[in-house]
Amino acid sequence: MIIVLKQGTGAKAIKEITKKVEEQGVSVSHFSDIKRDFLGVIGDTSAIDTHRLQARPEVEQIVRVEEPYKRANRKFHPENSIIEVGQETIGGDQLGIIAGPCSVESEEQIVDVAKRIKKAGANFLRGGAFKPRTSPYSFQGLELEGLRMLQTAKAETGLPIVTELMSTKWIDEFVESVDMIQIGARNMQNFDLLKEVGKTKTPVLLKRGLSATYKEWLMSAEYIMSEGNENVILCERGVRTFEPETRNTLDIQAVPVIKKLSHLPIIIDPSHAGGMSYLVEAGAKSGIVAGADGLMIEVHNDPENAWSDGEQCLTPDEFGLLMEKAEKLASVEGRTVPLSTQSVSN
Amino acid sequence: MIIVLKQGTGAKAIKEITKKVEEQGVSVSHFSDIKRDFLGVIGDTSAIDTHRLQARPEVEQIVRVEEPYKRANRKFHPENSIIEVGQETIGGDQLGIIAGPCSVESEEQIVDVAKRIKKAGANFLRGGAFKPRTSPYSFQGLELEGLRMLQTAKAETGLPIVTELMSTKWIDEFVESVDMIQIGARNMQNFDLLKEVGKTKTPVLLKRGLSATYKEWLMSAEYIMSEGNENVILCERGVRTFEPETRNTLDIQAVPVIKKLSHLPIIIDPSHAGGMSYLVEAGAKSGIVAGADGLMIEVHNDPENAWSDGEQCLTPDEFGLLMEKAEKLASVEGRTVPLSTQSVSN
Amino acid sequence: MIIVLKQGTGAKAIKEITKKVEEQGVSVSHFSDIKRDFLGVIGDTSAIDTHRLQARPEVEQIVRVEEPYKRANRKFHPENSIIEVGQETIGGDQLGIIAGPCSVESEEQIVDVAKRIKKAGANFLRGGAFKPRTSPYSFQGLELEGLRMLQTAKAETGLPIVTELMSTKWIDEFVESVDMIQIGARNMQNFDLLKEVGKTKTPVLLKRGLSATYKEWLMSAEYIMSEGNENVILCERGVRTFEPETRNTLDIQAVPVIKKLSHLPIIIDPSHAGGMSYLVEAGAKSGIVAGADGLMIEVHNDPENAWSDGEQCLTPDEFGLLMEKAEKLASVEGRTVPLSTQSVSN
Amino acid sequence: MIIVLKQGTGAKAIKEITKKVEEQGVSVSHFSDIKRDFLGVIGDTSAIDTHRLQARPEVEQIVRVEEPYKRANRKFHPENSIIEVGQETIGGDQLGIIAGPCSVESEEQIVDVAKRIKKAGANFLRGGAFKPRTSPYSFQGLELEGLRMLQTAKAETGLPIVTELMSTKWIDEFVESVDMIQIGARNMQNFDLLKEVGKTKTPVLLKRGLSATYKEWLMSAEYIMSEGNENVILCERGVRTFEPETRNTLDIQAVPVIKKLSHLPIIIDPSHAGGMSYLVEAGAKSGIVAGADGLMIEVHNDPENAWSDGEQCLTPDEFGLLMEKAEKLASVEGRTVPLSTQSVSN
Repeated sequence: MIIVLKQGTGAKAIKEITKKVEEQGVSVSHFSDIKRDFLGVIGDTSAIDTHRLQARPEVEQIVRVEEPYKRANRKFHPENSIIEVGQETIGGDQLGIIAGPCSVESEEQIVDVAKRIKKAGANFLRGGAFKPRTSPYSFQGLELEGLRMLQTAKAETGLPIVTELMSTKWIDEFVESVDMIQIGARNMQNFDLLKEVGKTKTPVLLKRGLSATYKEWLMSAEYIMSEGNENVILCERGVRTFEPETRNTLDIQAVPVIKKLSHLPIIIDPSHAGGMSYLVEAGAKSGIVAGADGLMIEVHNDPENAWSDGEQCLTPDEFGLLMEKAEKLASVEGRTVPLSTQSVSN
Repeated sequence: MIIVLKQGTGAKAIKEITKKVEEQGVSVSHFSDIKRDFLGVIGDTSAIDTHRLQARPEVEQIVRVEEPYKRANRKFHPENSIIEVGQETIGGDQLGIIAGPCSVESEEQIVDVAKRIKKAGANFLRGGAFKPRTSPYSFQGLELEGLRMLQTAKAETGLPIVTELMSTKWIDEFVESVDMIQIGARNMQNFDLLKEVGKTKTPVLLKRGLSATYKEWLMSAEYIMSEGNENVILCERGVRTFEPETRNTLDIQAVPVIKKLSHLPIIIDPSHAGGMSYLVEAGAKSGIVAGADGLMIEVHNDPENAWSDGEQCLTPDEFGLLMEKAEKLASVEGRTVPLSTQSVSN
Repeated sequence: MIIVLKQGTGAKAIKEITKKVEEQGVSVSHFSDIKRDFLGVIGDTSAIDTHRLQARPEVEQIVRVEEPYKRANRKFHPENSIIEVGQETIGGDQLGIIAGPCSVESEEQIVDVAKRIKKAGANFLRGGAFKPRTSPYSFQGLELEGLRMLQTAKAETGLPIVTELMSTKWIDEFVESVDMIQIGARNMQNFDLLKEVGKTKTPVLLKRGLSATYKEWLMSAEYIMSEGNENVILCERGVRTFEPETRNTLDIQAVPVIKKLSHLPIIIDPSHAGGMSYLVEAGAKSGIVAGADGLMIEVHNDPENAWSDGEQCLTPDEFGLLMEKAEKLASVEGRTVPLSTQSVSN
Repeated sequence: MIIVLKQGTGAKAIKEITKKVEEQGVSVSHFSDIKRDFLGVIGDTSAIDTHRLQARPEVEQIVRVEEPYKRANRKFHPENSIIEVGQETIGGDQLGIIAGPCSVESEEQIVDVAKRIKKAGANFLRGGAFKPRTSPYSFQGLELEGLRMLQTAKAETGLPIVTELMSTKWIDEFVESVDMIQIGARNMQNFDLLKEVGKTKTPVLLKRGLSATYKEWLMSAEYIMSEGNENVILCERGVRTFEPETRNTLDIQAVPVIKKLSHLPIIIDPSHAGGMSYLVEAGAKSGIVAGADGLMIEVHNDPENAWSDGEQCLTPDEFGLLMEKAEKLASVEGRTVPLSTQSVSN
């Protein structure tokens, strides 16, 4: 961290600032050139509040050279993290393919979808039991009943379950019955929820907030990790821009940027990014070649009758075709998809 | 709501769609011109899931003519809402002036600030006891101890207390000891939290999310109101844009837009919008003349030593000068500030 | 400028970088702390290409402490610039009030509007002769014929004319017949056009680009000023955000930020910002109290039949009412509006 | 187009609006349900000014069902356009690979780069002769001398030339010596320039504006096409968002959206999107699998000494490796890269 002081800052102020900063357990070196003074701060600067320093009238600018995240930082953990989720892993050579409907609607529906996506190449089942909806008048999910149906689908197919947790109230039920807890975009900075899932050992799928910077996203991962749960997987699902034609703008550059800054796995959700089924293929394929560790794709047995987000779902058949293409691209990239293994074993 | 069908949609599909929509308790009229058919939907369309309809291949476009919010909608509540908060009100002729530090740091500090802002013209005291911080390593607030200190400050000054609730865990403590519960920008779509505060009768200050549209913001108000708590006050605090020079971009147009769409009061927080103390005056004054019902301003007795957000705080003296200007502008607008009354009574 | 080098950068590379930077006429000091080296650059760094330096593998980060604009910079010109435009000025105590229709439609129309806005309190007439339209099939303006009509309106009322130049082709005609040349938002970085108007002495009204940062905007002013024309007035007209309800988001903080960074006058265009007439009043009044040097407001004698942008126009009567309010607010701010003078003289 | 009227609009107003709209050569049908009236507009609505209609107090909302672009619209030109550029084409099975330095710096440099990129797999040479720079103090390009050097490079390698035109002043020189004229992002709505290149027959590479919507982008293509030049190729180069870590956010969804809306070819420029060389590979590969018709990549023989944008350049060797990967991905997608052909012929 470098603190640039305004021209004409006196020795007394420099001494004071130095003292205040050093009280936080770091060391400070003082430099100056003809025009101005500056202070180089060495040590663990992650707890230093730059807002507070910035309030001093002598401070022109503060430059963070170090990233404020530690556990999520690739610098201190150079190799990729591989997260175990149920019997599967995410972050290694094999892509994690998460598929399923936006909402769990009935036992019959979720079991049927689970069987079909497994056959088509998924190795995780998703399905919303608790749904974050913009309107209080929209369907809010089957809640605990939905969780139970997901478990039935898991019992029938062996697929680990991924589903969204919106409230600390249900955390025990999730830890018991879910293989990976999803934190949705709207809750990416629900710090209370992050801390609570951080106290569990259940893997967490952390979606990027609608307008969260990479740094904020990694800081949210850091919240979870700093409580002891290092099993975090990031999910890019599009960011909010000025473009009205698509629901969100898929930020494919997130993949190489996150891979550079962090050792955590990152997957792509092309369904929520574009918000329309015809955009899923391009987003999914881009994710694979950009280096993502997996995909999360909405699949519904009957999109027109889906209880939520029907316009962005693929049918199981469309999903199957996409997986065939995914396999070829993964192979070019030196990776595999679950399909490949299954093809061999069947 | 108008459903525009694609050219060539057959009578059977039209019938099916009509039936499905009517199942949701509305009525549908069918029109057509030379090129295409469309369906006009009449009745309470707030629960209709347009995503689901959009998934049908025959649907070209869906146009919502009605707003999806009801209780927050000015159409069904033409006069302005005036919300009682402690002994004060927000939404009437007198502006609500909320001031205080970002964080409660000590009893001495909060009592001192409370006395000074009251003298300078505030009629509400704010102060963070639970702090949403981007970094888990930053100061997280004094928590329940902070709440207790706020109550001491209220006992000494009579100022009603506004403070942020981040977790449903503390809702009982907040209902007992706080006059207005603040929901922060990052939790604007924490629907679980919204529903819980909706079950109380305590007034809620609902900040706009970092990239929330007006409609989403009003839908979040609707979440609270639909649970029975109609005491909602909206707070514009800047939105996220591409501009790096300021922390957020204060959206002053939010005031006339919200006033048109809703009967709820709206206040302006210029401190968080700009993120720098020199921007507070312009934002606060703009808020008054644009028609806002109040201001929320960070004031600290010693900004350079503030534990958070020091660079955007005013000193009590600066705040006093701002209130003098506010009084003159409010007077031009036919409104009053708490200061005016106090000047008379002292 | 501070160049932060990566850890482990060797003496040879440091020497090379120092030499390269010093070739650009500045001096470089070398500092180091335990972890890394950095180079402080002193002198006129405005021509240094940071992109080029950033390409060197040893460079971690480059921090510009100095702003890259000189002529527009308040540091080198502490007092406010007051620009003479025809018989009027902008930037002094009196606000500049520019009003008129989006498009010049006929001689009768523009003369009528000119008379009515003058009476209501404007001291400049605006009207588009060359129109930037998103669609090639929309009305593109009366072009030179429109310029001639503006001159007639000026002859009848004495109001100086402001109109948009879109092409270097017409620059001579503009210099001859226009008092202030407007550069529109879409051309803010049409550097060819900026240079050409920079070679004239005609005052330039430089609108902010749809997603231009403050710095880019001031750099565009610098383009004009560096060619010799220092008569630049900035115009905030809203920026593009995610919000669909309003055409643009008026960035009222632009006023105090620009006032801090630059000595150039800044005015507010609330008509284009919101894109709807009911938003004009709040934007205009906010501009005045935030410290803007003037307003630009669309006024049409018959908004419903306007050839462009009708939905954001005020009628002359509505404009008159707004000017009465403007006068009161300007008075609180220690400023005057043209109306005030006229009231006295009539 | 559907015009939704406010509740209670009388028969007289409906008649008036109908008449006004029909004056523009379209026909209008009147419908009504219990609550309101609406007007369906049939015919060529591209010239109808919705702003003007919106100004009428009776109009609640206007819904464009038809796109306002015609020549660029896939509806009226279902098959993909294949554009001939010199001896090459863009839009067919073979990807167009445009490579070269940001700026032409010397004859030696551009000839050297041209030879090396051709060998590595490019079939077009790019290089800036006229440079749009944010600062007037930055290097502005070698101008006509640069054009001449590009021609030398073309003579030596046979590669068609792509370079940016910033001013109508040089249009004759460009038509004579350039194979494809680039319109940069900052000039995407420089309508004067669009019209002038529209009067030529030279292919135009139209970059997307920094915050241009898809519709605005296609309308700018329409400007060129409506003047008679149908040889337009679109180039996605990243859009401006809130994210500070990358220069722009590459919008990969632009590819499938544009392919759906238009028959024009679209290519991806990953160099300007990310602004850093380590992001180029992910962007380029995503472009190919998303269905783009080509790539535009900055390659410099000596990035550290590039006169502009050095940090985003690849070296010729890095570019060669990327082309090998591109070939494999193109092959999966059923397309070819120029490299493939050359490998066969050499």
